[in-house]
Amino acid sequence: MSLADRVRQGERRAIAKAITLLESTRADHRAQADELLTALLPGTGNAFRLGISGVPGVGKSTFIEALGLYLIAQGHRVAVLAVDPSSSVSGGSILGDKTRMEHLSVNDKAYIRPSPSSGTLGGVAAKTREAMLVCEAAGYDIVIVETVGVGQSEIAVAGMTDMFVLLQLPNAGDDLQAIKKGVMEVADLVVINKADIDPDAATRAQAQITSSLRILTQQGRHSGPWHPQVLQLSALKAQGIDRFWAAVAKYREVQGAAGRIEARRKHQALDWMWERIESGLKQRFRQSSGVRQLLPQMTRDVELGRLAASTAARQLLAAMDPGSSPG
Amino acid sequence: MSLADRVRQGERRAIAKAITLLESTRADHRAQADELLTALLPGTGNAFRLGISGVPGVGKSTFIEALGLYLIAQGHRVAVLAVDPSSSVSGGSILGDKTRMEHLSVNDKAYIRPSPSSGTLGGVAAKTREAMLVCEAAGYDIVIVETVGVGQSEIAVAGMTDMFVLLQLPNAGDDLQAIKKGVMEVADLVVINKADIDPDAATRAQAQITSSLRILTQQGRHSGPWHPQVLQLSALKAQGIDRFWAAVAKYREVQGAAGRIEARRKHQALDWMWERIESGLKQRFRQSSGVRQLLPQMTRDVELGRLAASTAARQLLAAMDPGSSPG
Repeated sequence: MSLADRVRQGERRAIAKAITLLESTRADHRAQADELLTALLPGTGNAFRLGISGVPGVGKSTFIEALGLYLIAQGHRVAVLAVDPSSSVSGGSILGDKTRMEHLSVNDKAYIRPSPSSGTLGGVAAKTREAMLVCEAAGYDIVIVETVGVGQSEIAVAGMTDMFVLLQLPNAGDDLQAIKKGVMEVADLVVINKADIDPDAATRAQAQITSSLRILTQQGRHSGPWHPQVLQLSALKAQGIDRFWAAVAKYREVQGAAGRIEARRKHQALDWMWERIESGLKQRFRQSSGVRQLLPQMTRDVELGRLAASTAARQLLAAMDPGSSPG
Repeated sequence: MSLADRVRQGERRAIAKAITLLESTRADHRAQADELLTALLPGTGNAFRLGISGVPGVGKSTFIEALGLYLIAQGHRVAVLAVDPSSSVSGGSILGDKTRMEHLSVNDKAYIRPSPSSGTLGGVAAKTREAMLVCEAAGYDIVIVETVGVGQSEIAVAGMTDMFVLLQLPNAGDDLQAIKKGVMEVADLVVINKADIDPDAATRAQAQITSSLRILTQQGRHSGPWHPQVLQLSALKAQGIDRFWAAVAKYREVQGAAGRIEARRKHQALDWMWERIESGLKQRFRQSSGVRQLLPQMTRDVELGRLAASTAARQLLAAMDPGSSPG
């Protein structure tokens, strides 16, 4: 039986093997991976893709475990993936330690995969998108993509999911950081976790974030019928998970009916294609022998103001392949 | 006498001709332009580069006119350039109507040039950077780059100037928009204009923005000795221009002594080079006959989920030049 067939039957070892193949950078693996992806593609796209982010300490693992167990009790199959570009530096990874979700990780209706630990954010995000397709082909109908609340990875996860949820602590000022990073703007739902510890602070944070969201979305991307909401819950006590899922269901209903989820996926797929093209072009450029010869000296000259940056760019592009005219 | 020599002597018609040459997209002009830039380069870099932004109605023209006349009275020569990518769509341009600065535009110590009206933001920004070098070679020691307060053009202008100033109206909520767009974060100085109309509102806005800046710069790029400030003034009444310029002088002094302005310029020059390289690579990709043949169908297939985006990207890169291996 082919690897694609075994994935479609939901065989866990086949899923792991398929994702490992997709993560490989070897050229022969890449050809096999494309073949596998193409074979799996007709069985993909049926899951709901949920992005979840929040700063370290906000309680993401606890929340995802509570949510995952709730969803499995409702009859769903849940895959959890992660995007953490820092894992290639630290060697570690969010989700790397499965004991963080000790009940969910041993449940046979759940599949948990840590972040790919190689390359740039673009590369890590591309691998995670492909892993998401494998999980969908294997019959998981809810795919959760987790990311750490630092840097551009949150925007990348919002760009590969149907709905993006931001977890916040009931602290003033946290929301300003999220606004600054452009994360608040892409949040479809904001969850204030650990609300039970200080209910008054949580209520103040809810009011403040609601007000911020109202101003932000005046000129934002939210042109659909959905208006971002703010919920309070306690993941540790598994309080509020049902209200959270009811809000997600409402989102799917109103955005789905308006064709917004389909439109978002089309947009995401094209963005993804162009991101990969640009990354590939840049890689070719850097690997060209003509460029490698000139780049160090030109970089210095540009830095020191001895060569105009635009002139250097034109000369480097011309050096990329001597046969062509300057770009 | 060569065009470069005439520019160096500050001849106005030569400056205009040089900038027009640099803005041209014709291949033969481009070669001449590179030659001109290289000839002018040793005489550049001595001006202070000041970026100014703010939403329509904030009073940018009035402010720049008042500032320009103030600086000329102090013995400076002032060039004013603009970045407005929308001008290629609307046909109009900020600064296009010179009567907006009726006193400054007729002063022989000032040179005013509207936004290039062709191409993408990247293209417009590159042309403006080159025009800035021409003005510097012509002996203008203050170059002001104005941009409209919409979209990414503000980040582009902050990325080509030594200091970036954001003009705000004394309205609550305006600062949140600026934070959202990432503009507040790159502002070295925030000016509340029209402060005379409602002094109480201006004072409230000043306190609010000061507090926002403090939170934003906790994790921001401002690792130098300068801390972003907030000033009130009235450009229409020419009140506070001297205090504004004193703040700019202080910025130049403390950032200059710490080597921050030089470091910023080096960083900007490299960013500019890479931006131009990426733009050139993408242009080549789109112009390749192999790509042009496949792109429309592949775009549709990716949108409809019939082809994985990463597979499409690899196939298109392989089609770009049939001789090379897939990127």
